[in-house]
Amino acid sequence: MSGWLCIVGLGPGDEQLVTPEVSAALAQATDVVGYIPYVARIAPRPGLTLHASDNRVEMDRARAALQMAAAGQKVVVVSSGDPGVFAMAAALFEALEGQPQWQTLDIRVLPGITAMLAAAAKAGAPLGHDFCAINLSDNLKPASLIEARVRAAAGADFAIAFYNPRSASRPDTFVRILAVLLEICGPDRLITFARAVSTPEERIATVTLAQARADMADMRTVVIVGNSATRQVGRFVYTPRAVATPVLP
Amino acid sequence: MSGWLCIVGLGPGDEQLVTPEVSAALAQATDVVGYIPYVARIAPRPGLTLHASDNRVEMDRARAALQMAAAGQKVVVVSSGDPGVFAMAAALFEALEGQPQWQTLDIRVLPGITAMLAAAAKAGAPLGHDFCAINLSDNLKPASLIEARVRAAAGADFAIAFYNPRSASRPDTFVRILAVLLEICGPDRLITFARAVSTPEERIATVTLAQARADMADMRTVVIVGNSATRQVGRFVYTPRAVATPVLP
Repeated sequence: MSGWLCIVGLGPGDEQLVTPEVSAALAQATDVVGYIPYVARIAPRPGLTLHASDNRVEMDRARAALQMAAAGQKVVVVSSGDPGVFAMAAALFEALEGQPQWQTLDIRVLPGITAMLAAAAKAGAPLGHDFCAINLSDNLKPASLIEARVRAAAGADFAIAFYNPRSASRPDTFVRILAVLLEICGPDRLITFARAVSTPEERIATVTLAQARADMADMRTVVIVGNSATRQVGRFVYTPRAVATPVLP
Repeated sequence: MSGWLCIVGLGPGDEQLVTPEVSAALAQATDVVGYIPYVARIAPRPGLTLHASDNRVEMDRARAALQMAAAGQKVVVVSSGDPGVFAMAAALFEALEGQPQWQTLDIRVLPGITAMLAAAAKAGAPLGHDFCAINLSDNLKPASLIEARVRAAAGADFAIAFYNPRSASRPDTFVRILAVLLEICGPDRLITFARAVSTPEERIATVTLAQARADMADMRTVVIVGNSATRQVGRFVYTPRAVATPVLP
């Protein structure tokens, strides 16, 4: 028995953004576990079993993966982007709690290109100075905490990347966040909507907060709000490395 | 003349973490431009000229790369990690300012595995919930702004990744930041020091803020401070996806 478990990131969509380390793990795997659209990215082959499951069953999926690795299988849990950013790695470690028999397994996390880095690269360099990443899904935390974090981040002049900005079940969260940003950052602040980056459906648009509307985003969109120095040059948007004059006392 | 310019990320060190997209750009390049240790990672070959330069000449390097691309050369500017995170992409766009003749060039940014993602993966999943990335180099901004951002981020219960935590020329910045974190987050908060991730010199250590000392970090270290829920399970450190109870009003 020499089972193992890798939690890997497939990047944003383009196979050219999958690291060789992840490709090697997939080539050795006996079992691939994950959310349906991510497992669909894995080419079937003899000796490989694909276990696709629906969204919101992350804990069941993590336990099943651990059980298979404990039974000697070579298991890859796939996430899009990076597995450690709003993805399966944290769920896997939650499933390890109170399960000492699984904690000695060969478990590795293999990083990937997370959506905000792919989006920033396509737009230019809007994350070129200090920045935050905030998941706007309120399944996992109260809306009041999301708003407090947005206020803290914008108030301290961080650029901000928003994951999962909007879904049909909670259309109002992002409307509220855009209003908070407009209040703190003013109408001229640049905001980039990057949808389905690196896929055939890719669409990148940079507008001002005055022009931004919540329906410019969906669940396949990463939204990046610049800091007070973020600017456009040619077709690009970027945040300068240096702060020319102190923004805060 | 069909010159182009790619600003690429080589990842943290291991060649298995270089994306195929970046490898393809390097295979087609006529010129590679960058800081000495990053250019040293590129294998010489006939038809490829390596242009290695010292640190702190980013603007000269960016202009030279643009001039070569404008002259029809195929130029790759290399950064470690991701080029858009505290690296060459922002410098390149700064060099484009006021230079309309360069703004129509074929310029692309190719993302890479940034240090905090590689470090987090090796440690577990400490960035599994909302987080910030802060560059502690005070060459580019005043120390007061750095401290204000750390206070805002810790106060709003973000996990925080620190780049460039410490150098010989400014040993006191990180001492001060650790004191601020201890004040806001308390002695039991987990902090991970990840040095030279994915290289033979890799060293990962997770301690509490009470145990943390500034000399645990150097310029090759990324430091990740957890949020109030970050915990250890087995040999891993991770931040749960959900907030059990609201931390802020």
